[in-house]
Amino acid sequence: MKKVAIILSGCGVFDGSEIHEAVITMLSVEQNGAQYQCFAPDVTQMHVVNHLTGEVAEQESRNVLVEAARIARGEIKPVTELNADDFDALLLPGGFGAAKNLCDFAINGGEASMNSDVLAACQSFAKVGKPAGYICISPAMIPMVYGQGAQATIGTDLDTAAGVTALGGEHIECPVSEFVVDEANKVVSTPAYMLAGNISEAADGIGKLVKQVLAMA
Amino acid sequence: MKKVAIILSGCGVFDGSEIHEAVITMLSVEQNGAQYQCFAPDVTQMHVVNHLTGEVAEQESRNVLVEAARIARGEIKPVTELNADDFDALLLPGGFGAAKNLCDFAINGGEASMNSDVLAACQSFAKVGKPAGYICISPAMIPMVYGQGAQATIGTDLDTAAGVTALGGEHIECPVSEFVVDEANKVVSTPAYMLAGNISEAADGIGKLVKQVLAMA
Repeated sequence: MKKVAIILSGCGVFDGSEIHEAVITMLSVEQNGAQYQCFAPDVTQMHVVNHLTGEVAEQESRNVLVEAARIARGEIKPVTELNADDFDALLLPGGFGAAKNLCDFAINGGEASMNSDVLAACQSFAKVGKPAGYICISPAMIPMVYGQGAQATIGTDLDTAAGVTALGGEHIECPVSEFVVDEANKVVSTPAYMLAGNISEAADGIGKLVKQVLAMA
Repeated sequence: MKKVAIILSGCGVFDGSEIHEAVITMLSVEQNGAQYQCFAPDVTQMHVVNHLTGEVAEQESRNVLVEAARIARGEIKPVTELNADDFDALLLPGGFGAAKNLCDFAINGGEASMNSDVLAACQSFAKVGKPAGYICISPAMIPMVYGQGAQATIGTDLDTAAGVTALGGEHIECPVSEFVVDEANKVVSTPAYMLAGNISEAADGIGKLVKQVLAMA
């Protein structure tokens, strides 16, 4: 049975992992006959957002690994323990946490950099040619992991795409129901909630991405 | 298009809604051609559990509606605004939050009582004969909503089943891939993570329950 590592970034679309995307990713892995293990960086979230009001909860502080454990039902490990030797493929769901806690793309756009432990984990897959799938805003990390010219999609948003290009990536427009494959780098991306109007649209593209990544594993 | 109300109880299996069950419920509703609106009580959680360690975070306090908004991507309303007039069916995912925040079954077992606003919302469906589906530990509320003799399943756990019986319900054992229908009350229940060993097992039973509830609507 193929083993997939999933890197989470908290729990909630505005300050962590997009919950629908994370759960659909897990379900798709199992429905394709594989199994998953979740990981997250053991760091403080950039901030906490009240998801009812959309406002930053200035007085609150939460830990990415501890909150991501909610999505993983407690079965999660620090991303420092993730190495490609133990897995066949890697998946990163989206949500603002991917751009706030795994890297700082939400703040620094085309000048962003990644959390060093997350970068090391992602590059361990790139170095040995094991496939990976980046979902929603996570593909902003593809040029940081794979270097100049790596192909990625965040959908059709021009400003976000310009950030990916500034980081050295080749942005390719893509509808929510499709995905982009960089064959040379063995990395796949899909827009999910960058474009999805509802959960079934998100599930459509994510399901196809997971199937593609597992086929390449 | 049929409209379904979903009552959440926070965000995380140990102190709120079981996230996988909640997301699978939403996805199943859409995949069966219906739409959903989420609700939750605007109350303080019974407690906050660190999902990495499993321990209660004594110094923390969170609000059920605010945390449930994470699963709903901000699109959620207070349960006081929920009335069966506006919907065709009702669904309640599980997680300890259902037994800690929607009612106090986790503490009081066979002598449990429900949050009065949640009870009123659930009974509004019961009174007009609109169908409802209760998932995982949520079926413990079925005798409190529907009264003596209502049929429910929480799977096969004898202690939990005894609590349902003490509340006046008729507990029926059920495997994770099946569901129990109380035809007279138009209420359906399935064990999900009371028995599921993984997310695809949970998805199997929940998918069948949602299909059944929508067929009765």
